[in-house]
Amino acid sequence: MDFPGKVAIIGGGTWATAIAKLVLFNVDSINWYMRRRDRIADFKRLGHNPVYLSSVKFDIDRINFSSNINKVVRESDTLVFVTPSPYLKQHLKKLTASMNDKFVLSAIKGIVPDENMIVTDYLKRFYNIPEENLAVIGGPCHAEEVALERLSYLTIGCPDVTRARKVSDLLSNHFIKVSTSKDVEGIEYGSVLKNVYAIAAGICYGLKYGDNFQAVLISNAIQELNRFINAVHPMRRDICDSVYLGDLLVTAYSRFSRNHTFGTMIGKGYSVKTAQIEMEMIAEGYYGTKCIKEINEKYKVDMPILDTVYNILYNKMSSFAEIKHLTETFR
Amino acid sequence: MDFPGKVAIIGGGTWATAIAKLVLFNVDSINWYMRRRDRIADFKRLGHNPVYLSSVKFDIDRINFSSNINKVVRESDTLVFVTPSPYLKQHLKKLTASMNDKFVLSAIKGIVPDENMIVTDYLKRFYNIPEENLAVIGGPCHAEEVALERLSYLTIGCPDVTRARKVSDLLSNHFIKVSTSKDVEGIEYGSVLKNVYAIAAGICYGLKYGDNFQAVLISNAIQELNRFINAVHPMRRDICDSVYLGDLLVTAYSRFSRNHTFGTMIGKGYSVKTAQIEMEMIAEGYYGTKCIKEINEKYKVDMPILDTVYNILYNKMSSFAEIKHLTETFR
Repeated sequence: MDFPGKVAIIGGGTWATAIAKLVLFNVDSINWYMRRRDRIADFKRLGHNPVYLSSVKFDIDRINFSSNINKVVRESDTLVFVTPSPYLKQHLKKLTASMNDKFVLSAIKGIVPDENMIVTDYLKRFYNIPEENLAVIGGPCHAEEVALERLSYLTIGCPDVTRARKVSDLLSNHFIKVSTSKDVEGIEYGSVLKNVYAIAAGICYGLKYGDNFQAVLISNAIQELNRFINAVHPMRRDICDSVYLGDLLVTAYSRFSRNHTFGTMIGKGYSVKTAQIEMEMIAEGYYGTKCIKEINEKYKVDMPILDTVYNILYNKMSSFAEIKHLTETFR
Repeated sequence: MDFPGKVAIIGGGTWATAIAKLVLFNVDSINWYMRRRDRIADFKRLGHNPVYLSSVKFDIDRINFSSNINKVVRESDTLVFVTPSPYLKQHLKKLTASMNDKFVLSAIKGIVPDENMIVTDYLKRFYNIPEENLAVIGGPCHAEEVALERLSYLTIGCPDVTRARKVSDLLSNHFIKVSTSKDVEGIEYGSVLKNVYAIAAGICYGLKYGDNFQAVLISNAIQELNRFINAVHPMRRDICDSVYLGDLLVTAYSRFSRNHTFGTMIGKGYSVKTAQIEMEMIAEGYYGTKCIKEINEKYKVDMPILDTVYNILYNKMSSFAEIKHLTETFR
């Protein structure tokens, strides 16, 4: 395997567009899979993604677009998966080309629904990708600020340090600093749970809890996250590293994140269905809540915030009463 | 000593007013020392603090005001010190009454200048108050939200758990939850350093760093705080507890905190002097920066954020260049 070799972006959303921008700082050309041909045609015509991060201009001659995922996989060595997690299986279903000798980088912040597996576990199990060929991209990074070229930090999780460093080289530039870590599982679970906690922060914001309380909520959330990932994947880690705590902060403190907005609507009294229709976007934490709740049936970690969000979203319990109950568990 | 007995508030600012409100939920009457007689007269006439938190109405019949600190100390059993730290010595200079048999609660978030000591150490050393008669109030708590009766959490640091619980009873009500801790020193140093980090966050905000970077800054700040207090006062503590992390978050993420505003002006290019004149308020982190810097000469803890703020504020170094240099140390 030529590594990183030819890089492919799999996905056409905001984060995919930001990562494409980063990769194109460091390589001459990329392959880019998008499901919709009309989007590709518009992208080529306009010189930017027609729907997401449209302020980022691309040199179209350096991008080989295709709506054929098999062609893109066959012609690439490093695959960057960056679709919303609920759609991953749908894209992969069309895949007949082998990924055995590919390096696969997941920038998906979410869990594969139904399977209740983090993305790298899913790819290992169902696509026979060896562990050393898998890595994840984590860190506190709104794509919008990557578009603005504002200094941001990423962390590459990969068991193979040399490869982690090569991926780091692929993404680094004057406004992106990249660290490496061996904690693939911790980074993935952390990036799922932060969305759950952002929904919780949104619900509390919608219920008119103030900044004092939000700080307490987030302090308790990072402790809950630490308990969970220590149970699922015990290893030495500093939960205050930016890939865990920073990622939680940037999501939970952002009033513009989908998950926070979704939570705010729930806190203000919208039903889950209405909030989803109004938003026209997927709040990944909605699915993450259910997945982690189910995974935790095995580990039985004390997770009052997760349980509260689950009860509100899936058991239609009153957010007012549930959050009030939650506040009793905090310190 | 009758404990808590008669409670006195020493200080007339925002936080003093909020704490007076809390104490008056649980006791019939308090003594209240304020330096300025005209303020006391206005307070009595208006039924609220004329300058700070003026939306909070008080029943004047339940408050014995005095501008005579000796009278207030003599007539009280529990003294709550809640002046800005730079003024503490000035108030205490006038004190001839003994505090030996008083319980002293410090709500001062700062270090005693010149002495470079936290408040409880200063009171122990210079006023012979035994350790078991000393406690601190910490936690993420904007006084403005206490005024609005928004749910907030405090932590009482006291070596004597029974007394800590009694203080907790003195301050708790339906919107204030109070925990206890034995980590007096850690809470005090944490509450000083969070102001330094809020200045750092303000400087970066003034320099137009974005939310992604702020999350990285705060992740690194809590690690730096942990390293420092572990060196100065080693004990088992979870730095993610709300009294440490939450207090940092509520200060560093608030664009309305004095320290953040002060930092923002520095980041935008104001000189320290001009920023101080414009603000007409004391940013306690300004003094805290110098004090911790000097204390750390003994401990030699790796504190790049503190060093950076110190260089900018006291060595007139360029905030642009210093912060750029700081970003290299982060991950």
